[in-house]
Amino acid sequence: MSDALALFIERIRAQDARAIARAISLVENDGAQALTLLQRLFPYTGRALVLGVTGSPGVGKSTLVDRLAQHYRARGETLGIIAVDPSSPFTGGAILGDRIRMQTLGTDPGVFIRSMATRGNLGGLARATGDAVLILDAAGYDRVIVETVGVGQDEVDIVKMADVTLVVLMPGLGDDVQTIKAGLMEIGDIFVINKADREGVSRIESELKAMLAIAERRDGWHPPIIKTIATEGQGIEDLGHAIARFLDFRRQSAQADERRQEMAEQRLRALLKERLFEVALHTLTTSEELRQWAVAIARRERDPYSIVEEILTRWKGHRRT
Amino acid sequence: MSDALALFIERIRAQDARAIARAISLVENDGAQALTLLQRLFPYTGRALVLGVTGSPGVGKSTLVDRLAQHYRARGETLGIIAVDPSSPFTGGAILGDRIRMQTLGTDPGVFIRSMATRGNLGGLARATGDAVLILDAAGYDRVIVETVGVGQDEVDIVKMADVTLVVLMPGLGDDVQTIKAGLMEIGDIFVINKADREGVSRIESELKAMLAIAERRDGWHPPIIKTIATEGQGIEDLGHAIARFLDFRRQSAQADERRQEMAEQRLRALLKERLFEVALHTLTTSEELRQWAVAIARRERDPYSIVEEILTRWKGHRRT
Repeated sequence: MSDALALFIERIRAQDARAIARAISLVENDGAQALTLLQRLFPYTGRALVLGVTGSPGVGKSTLVDRLAQHYRARGETLGIIAVDPSSPFTGGAILGDRIRMQTLGTDPGVFIRSMATRGNLGGLARATGDAVLILDAAGYDRVIVETVGVGQDEVDIVKMADVTLVVLMPGLGDDVQTIKAGLMEIGDIFVINKADREGVSRIESELKAMLAIAERRDGWHPPIIKTIATEGQGIEDLGHAIARFLDFRRQSAQADERRQEMAEQRLRALLKERLFEVALHTLTTSEELRQWAVAIARRERDPYSIVEEILTRWKGHRRT
Repeated sequence: MSDALALFIERIRAQDARAIARAISLVENDGAQALTLLQRLFPYTGRALVLGVTGSPGVGKSTLVDRLAQHYRARGETLGIIAVDPSSPFTGGAILGDRIRMQTLGTDPGVFIRSMATRGNLGGLARATGDAVLILDAAGYDRVIVETVGVGQDEVDIVKMADVTLVVLMPGLGDDVQTIKAGLMEIGDIFVINKADREGVSRIESELKAMLAIAERRDGWHPPIIKTIATEGQGIEDLGHAIARFLDFRRQSAQADERRQEMAEQRLRALLKERLFEVALHTLTTSEELRQWAVAIARRERDPYSIVEEILTRWKGHRRT
């Protein structure tokens, strides 16, 4: 087993795509094996530059990510790409993006592509994505791009792991674009207006500028606005430069260490939360018992709050004995 | 205290807007007081019909919800509306929607409106939203509408609490509309194409029909597609009928009990997870210690996985003594 693990790690570090794919499946299914693997891979991490790309569905994130990947490949850099699709909790899907991508980048051994979807209800998508980034980092990819749909809490958590975050918008998204921008304002290190050949580009640009003018970042960075037409490869060069500028800025920033620590703390908390629940399901209660209680709750015979406190009392009871 | 609590509950049940607002603030801040309150309110719940409304930013959800609210008000029903805005983790925002809404519905005592945003990083937005729905249910509102932006895991969790879920789309959202639909396909009980006066309505409708034709629901329901122009109030009547039809269907469905139990179990698990972490922060570790460990992780001196196992060993240690 230990020998097999050492070999497995060796293969991952040699960027063996099948080994990497298997490692990511392991962390998705979250077994005890995954834990040992991650512990062993951790010392090899911290080298990859992580790019987060977020924005509403339909703004063209996938195409933009593909073009950006080609941009870096042309410079000899290797890439891991993770497309997070939390939108399909039932089918465990997220295969569509993969298929489309395979056409442009799939045959290149310097690019590893993986989609991740929410499985079941145990949550942990942000955790699993973090683990996948760790694996790709340990595998020695120069850059890891994480693409997320939407602006939910999971997306925010995922984006927090990135060294640089791109928020992608497009012209004519509708009248409550203000709402979107307010939410993404402090997440975005760089703003991309994709589909910049569409009507309304100057409107969204001036609105965005106005919002950015009033927002003040703690680190003093002024997020640039880059216009792209990803389908035609326009603006990708500019975007590459903007990313490089931000990474330089961050490296020299006084907050660089602080930020790394914050990221580490986030991750530690998320891991602890998940593991506590797992252990509780073995020691304090069982899935079967939770199911039985759910029946009582649905009938209004019990309330969930007092049940949870009852479970917690068992913990305390254990400790007292 | 007990007298004050009894009085507080009485005021909530009398639909006193200030008491309800204070109760929701309590659950947002998640104090011990909230727990007692929720336990006491729980027996009064289970009567309200909960409508979930989801869709990308810009599709016009807010306007649609307002019109739907007016529709129900005209029939003498009272409403609680919760607008979930997880997009602003930094500012704790979500005030924009409120302000706009107050103009149309704000002065009506039969309508209670509240926005909820993610606060900090402790997550729990789905939990807090669930608690807010419970409060509005206990307060005796006939319907509770929960509106969420985006399609993240949090949104899915929130939407799972609803008796009926509306997925709102609009024409011309972009080329990867397929991706959106695949994700929302099994969440949506009713699909709404809003802004149906825009170009591309027949295209999105036929795509949606094609997707729905291949999807098969366990409960045998065929989700209808309703076209609306919310700003002009068009299609709202149809939408109201579609909702009523689905609620009738679900009431008679064999899966009705099963679904209620699943919802109860979700809720129980989410609550347990959150409380376990809270207790762990008091008994197994501290925020200060986590912060110190984060420094070690950021320096690559320690890995988060072994730290979490170390913390869990303390739990086991406690239990053994």
